[in-house]
Parts: sequence; structure tokens; C-alpha cells
Amino acid sequence: MPISAFSTDLYQLTMTAGYFTREMLPVRATFELFVRRLPRNRSFLVAAGLDQALEYLEALMFSEEDIAWLREQPAFRRLPPAFFDYLRAFRFSGDVWAMREGTAFFPMEPVLRVTAPIAEAQLVETALLAIITFQTTIASKSTRIVHAAAERPVMEFGARRAHGLDAGLFAARAAYLAGCSATSFVEAGRRFGIPLSGTMAHSWVLAAASEAEAFTAYAELFEQQTVLLIDTFDVNAATRILIDAGLRPQAVRIDSGDLAAASRSVRASLDSAGLTTTRIIVSGDLDEWKIADLVAAAAPIDSFAVGTALSTSDDAPALGGVYKLVQLEERGVVRQVMKRSEGKETWPGAKQVWRSEQGGTATGDLIALDEESPVSDAKPLLEAVMRNGARTTPHPTLEEARQHCRQGTEALPPRLRGLAADATYPIERSRALATLAR
Amino acid sequence: MPISAFSTDLYQLTMTAGYFTREMLPVRATFELFVRRLPRNRSFLVAAGLDQALEYLEALMFSEEDIAWLREQPAFRRLPPAFFDYLRAFRFSGDVWAMREGTAFFPMEPVLRVTAPIAEAQLVETALLAIITFQTTIASKSTRIVHAAAERPVMEFGARRAHGLDAGLFAARAAYLAGCSATSFVEAGRRFGIPLSGTMAHSWVLAAASEAEAFTAYAELFEQQTVLLIDTFDVNAATRILIDAGLRPQAVRIDSGDLAAASRSVRASLDSAGLTTTRIIVSGDLDEWKIADLVAAAAPIDSFAVGTALSTSDDAPALGGVYKLVQLEERGVVRQVMKRSEGKETWPGAKQVWRSEQGGTATGDLIALDEESPVSDAKPLLEAVMRNGARTTPHPTLEEARQHCRQGTEALPPRLRGLAADATYPIERSRALATLAR
Repeated sequence: MPISAFSTDLYQLTMTAGYFTREMLPVRATFELFVRRLPRNRSFLVAAGLDQALEYLEALMFSEEDIAWLREQPAFRRLPPAFFDYLRAFRFSGDVWAMREGTAFFPMEPVLRVTAPIAEAQLVETALLAIITFQTTIASKSTRIVHAAAERPVMEFGARRAHGLDAGLFAARAAYLAGCSATSFVEAGRRFGIPLSGTMAHSWVLAAASEAEAFTAYAELFEQQTVLLIDTFDVNAATRILIDAGLRPQAVRIDSGDLAAASRSVRASLDSAGLTTTRIIVSGDLDEWKIADLVAAAAPIDSFAVGTALSTSDDAPALGGVYKLVQLEERGVVRQVMKRSEGKETWPGAKQVWRSEQGGTATGDLIALDEESPVSDAKPLLEAVMRNGARTTPHPTLEEARQHCRQGTEALPPRLRGLAADATYPIERSRALATLAR
Repeated sequence: MPISAFSTDLYQLTMTAGYFTREMLPVRATFELFVRRLPRNRSFLVAAGLDQALEYLEALMFSEEDIAWLREQPAFRRLPPAFFDYLRAFRFSGDVWAMREGTAFFPMEPVLRVTAPIAEAQLVETALLAIITFQTTIASKSTRIVHAAAERPVMEFGARRAHGLDAGLFAARAAYLAGCSATSFVEAGRRFGIPLSGTMAHSWVLAAASEAEAFTAYAELFEQQTVLLIDTFDVNAATRILIDAGLRPQAVRIDSGDLAAASRSVRASLDSAGLTTTRIIVSGDLDEWKIADLVAAAAPIDSFAVGTALSTSDDAPALGGVYKLVQLEERGVVRQVMKRSEGKETWPGAKQVWRSEQGGTATGDLIALDEESPVSDAKPLLEAVMRNGARTTPHPTLEEARQHCRQGTEALPPRLRGLAADATYPIERSRALATLAR
């Protein structure tokens, strides 16, 4: 279902009325979406959400019901019928340049750039920010968690703790894009083709007459796909029970207690019973720090299921993304603009980001005006993704974005992948941009 | 549009298949939704989201498309056709008890209790948690912000920073419920009748030939409703410009810099020009601490617009809500259950929460088994809101919930309303509950 055209802030609509009334609709504006500074614990960000952002732009329109409602609102009552006719015909007709989903990026780098008639470019601000900064927040957190797991699969189990069900859905998407291997959220599996993963809840065990009965019944039903939750009462006793019952589950899950110690004793019991292929999954308020500790302790854990920390990016739940006017074009005359608000300055002009590499490792980025010529053999990160309101090319699949993310983050200097996030990456402005800003 | 029945975790569906296969569908289960401990900086929580949770339960069903998809999934391929017939007829037919939206509550207190055939009660876990804990998170944060503002209106401006647009929508609802006076998010205004508020963006000023032109054009269009943003370049110069242009805006907004100093100089300029009724709104990464500082400094600020901190509850973005099986009933026999997982124990049995008051101030809560008789003149907090899948009474309006929230939080001991959240509130378990848990 398309997103409501009213998924915007009131001022976008009052400014639209203003641009209409002042006959400024032909003015073409360029806005850039970027992040001013890195949040806590992050040394880079991972772009995500573009596919949903473009879907929104393609489907954007006001229904008759929308227009009827708007006409009754105090700020709009005095506007002429022609304004509502304008809204009736409103479609997004602009151009969009953006970094591919999965691209690692840094503060002050535009991750998306919109050039469109000013009212169109303005109206979409709120939705573009909400869609892109949220998925980017989760993808950025997920790369840390995936990295901490050191090639062990990470499953996303966080829908119940997400900021509502839609947030759970898109968190699952962003997490998979950034390297998680599966999600427990069924709608995300259906909608995006993400592999689904699930175990059983403690209630399954509690509802049975005994743990043995709970395990046996599940194993009969799901055979090789059975994952047994073994911490409802005592993990070692539960392991003994499943061994004694002759079960050969694909995996067991431990959700509480000392995970390193429990995984060791469970592994030993499973192995001595010949269940060497039964994997151990752990969960329970995990984050990248706890996972790194378990990995460092060489706990015999095969995969991690992560919920809250991942689906809310709990240490840095907001990015502070902004969407700022940088350029205007009226009757062929281009004017670059910037605001000078204290502590919230912007850089003027439509921009491109160039990434240099040496021996497969990124060495630094240059933020330049879009009209400047390429910097030696650096790669431009922003590409045309929409022209006149239509996508230029089929969007990469989620698998392709996931691959791109993996390659791009592996190409970052290794110091940026430390959990402490105490390393920096060189970002420069081109001389032309610096001169223009002055 | 109803929420997808697949807005759930995979294990809810595999367990549903298990309950079906084991002929356990007639077993009635009671689950309770609660929070184990208070998050950082909170001394109480505010219940919110019940209306959406009940909407979800009322509309829950599997479409033919859902069923066709599910049959193809590995874990479900071997299930008999009768299981899919069961899903086809699936509706939520249970009973729900819940605290009214806007009720202040504490850890271990059930805020919602579901009694239903076990598969129904289980399947809805993920959605109920996501819906209720998210709105509760935002309502709980909002009461702090509203309290810090000491009766000055607080406007919710956070949709762009929320975890997606749906999160922005429900954050606006929860914020209004908890005392905010307006939202900037248009869809929230339309859907929930929340008063809308908006100003202008910096881009409006930058796109005009001059600040004077930007201000004048807006004032012509919106007359008495005009709010001018005065920090694009320099707040004092902008104030001079609007005064010289003879404008009489309803308000001005300052979005950056030293808000206390700027509000003082702007107030002085406005007053000396006779614009004594023009209000001053401030915004820009505000939270309850910064607002409290501005209030303490007696800055001449009339209202606060709060974004990120509110719509993401940035200091405590997740609640850790859980939904746990506490009781089973099969052929008239009731069995209370609890899990004993290390650090994650639950309390058995269907429960009620009783709040005692003295002279209009809450003095403590008692968590008791539902079958226990009332405690002297204490008030029960959980009420029946759904019977056999249908709402028992019309849901209170959002205005009523807002009123209820205000009354309830004002009746809390004043020490609980401090921002430091260093005070506690007495919560006891009844003797019968303690005995049962042992």
C-alpha cells in the first residue's frame, strides 16, 4: 500500500502552498540528505532504505479524500481552488542521485540528492529522512554486530522490541542487507525473501506435561529443522533430557545465564552423546560487545540471535539525518545556497563524493561540487537512480545490496571496524567547494 | 489497512502448528505483558498503544495468499491440509484485560493480560509487544519532557527522526496522549485528530530573494497563523527585519545557538516594537534536561518543539517488554506456570494490580492473583477490554486517555516526577502470589 501523502510535516504543505501562491513552482531545487556527525560508537555508516524511498516517490499522490480533508484545515481554508487542483495533479517528477544501498559513508557526505521543482523536493523531506535514516541506523548497527560475530551467522530476532511492526519489518531488511543471515519476522521473510529462522518459546515447554514431551513433540513435527530451547529450567538437565529421548535436533538455543559456561557444558554433553552436528545458538539481550566477549572466550557457539540491540540500535537510536537545500535553478540561473545557523551550517551546491582506494583499501573521500571533474581514479559514490520521477534502472536486489555492503565494508581500513570506534577516516572538501562555502 | 497476520515471529507459527498437531487447541492459556525493570532515567512508565493492539486483534486473519505462501515454506510443507483450514478460519476469540491507556505503571505489573485458546494467545505475542511497548516507550519519555516544560506547550516535531513513518505516526499519538499539545506530522493530525503545528523550514528563507521577502510572503498567506523561523542567518537581524516589515506573526521559532540568550534578546526586541503577543518557540535537539535548564534560567520561551529525543526516546529507546505464559486451563483444571531461567524468572498465575491512594496521592501498588479479593479501598488497574474477541466497551477517545494520563501521573508521589529518576515507589506481591511462586 502506498504511503500516505500526509506522511509529512505540516510546514511542507504550508510551504507548498507558499511556492504555489508565489508562482515559484518552476524553480528547481536541489536538496541533499546527509548526517552531520557520527553517533556514538560508530566510525562509519551504511546506507540503506533507498528502495523504499524510491517506491514512496514513485507512488506519491494526493487522493480526493486527502484533498477534501486538507481544504478544511485552518491554514488551508483561504487557498484558491487552483491550489487543490495542483495537489490533485501532484506527482514527483524530479531526479534523484544516491549512494547504492550498502555503501559505507561518513558525516557531511550526501547519501541522497534530490533535484526537482521546489515544492516537490520540499514535500518529500520528512518521508525521505524517516525512511533512509532509520534503515541506515539499523544497517550501521548490524555491521558492528556481524563483524563482532566473526563469521558466525547472526539472526535478527528483534521485531517485538522494534518501534512498531513496520519498524520491525524494515529493521529486518536493513539487518539482512548489512550481513545478518536470517530473521525471525515472518512478514520480512515473505516481503523481502529473507531466510526465516525460528526456534520455540518458553511457553511451548511450560505448556507441555514435561520438557521431554515438549522436545519430542516438536522434533516429531519439524524433524531435521528442529531447534530446541533448553533454558526454561536448567540447560544441563534439558540437554540430558533430549539426549535420553534420542533426539537429534539441528540446534539448541540458550537464552539466559552465563552463555559461555552453558555453551561449553552443553557442547561437551552433546559431543559425548554423538550429537556433534547439533549446533548451539545463543540469545538474550546480546549486542556486539557481548558477542565479541563470547568470541574472544572461544565459547563453542555456532550462531547468535540478536533482538533489541539490533532492531532499535539501542546505543545510538537516531542518526540526526538532515535534508538541506543546497542549490536553486530559475530560468537557467543556478544559485548555490547555505545556511549559517550557529552549529548547524550547511555546505552549498550539488555535490558528489569520490572515494579513493589503494590496493583494494579505501584511503579517503573527497566531497566535491557535482560539476567538478573526477579525481584521478577515485570512484564516484552517488549515481543517478531516478530521472523525471521514474527509476533509471531496476533497483539492485537485496542480495546484491548485501554483497555490495560486504565488499564495501571489507574495503574500509581495518581500524574502522573496531568496536571502540576510535579511528577516523580522511574526508576532504574540494578546493572549489571550500571556496564557494567561503 | 489491517496488519498482516505474518507480523509475527516464525516460532509463533511453528508452535501454532504444534498445538494443532498435538490437539492442544482447546487449552486456554493466559499470557501477561509486562516490563522486568525500568529503563534508564525512568521512575515510572505510561501505558499506551492499547487501541491499536485491540484493532490488530479484531482484524487478525490469514488471507488465501498468506496461506498459499506458508504452505510452501520448508517447516510447513509436511503439515496436513486440516492445519491450513484451521488457519483459514483463524480469528482471535480470546479475552483481554488491560490497564487503560495513560495509566502509570511499574516493573513486573502486567499492563495487558490475554486469555485465549493457546495458539491464538501465542500467535499475537510479537505484534502485541511491538505495538504496546513502542507507544509506552514514547509516552513514558513524553511525560518527562512535558513535565520539564512546566506547563509551557510541547510540540512533537520528530517524525523525520522516528524509526520509519509508522513509528512517527504512533510516536505522535503517544506523545499527545502523554501531554504534548500538538504534532507537526500531518497524517497523525488526520488519523487521530491531534492538533497540527508547523512553522517554516530554512529552505523557505534560502529560496527567497531575501529574508524580508520570505517573511512577508509567508505572513500574507497565513496571516494570524504565521510562525517565522528566524535563525537561518542571525536571529537578531531577522527579528529586526520582521519588525521593520511591520509583520505581527503569531510566533517566531529559534532552532539553533544559545536558546536562552537568543530568546531574551528576541523577546526584548519584539516587546519594544509592541509585538508583545508574538510568542517564542524554540527547537533544535531539545530534550527534558535542556528544557529544564531553559525553564530554570527563566528564558522567555513560550513553547518547545521536540523531535529526535521524543520520537526515538533516545536515552532509553527500548523497554524490554515481555509476554509470558502464566496460566493454563484444560478441561476445567487450572495450572499456573512460571519459568525459572536464570535472571529471567516470571511470576505465575493470572494477576491484577491494585493501587492504593491517600489524599489523592498514590501510596503503593499490590500485585495479586486475579482470584484474590480486593485490597481494602485500592483500585484495580486492569479492566476487561475484550471478551471473545470483541471489545467490551467503546475505547476511550485519545482525549480521554490524555486526561486519564494527566490525572494519573499527577497523582503519583511528586518525587517520582524528578528527571533524575532516583526515587522508587512501593510495589508488593500478595502473600498468595508469593506462596504460589515458591
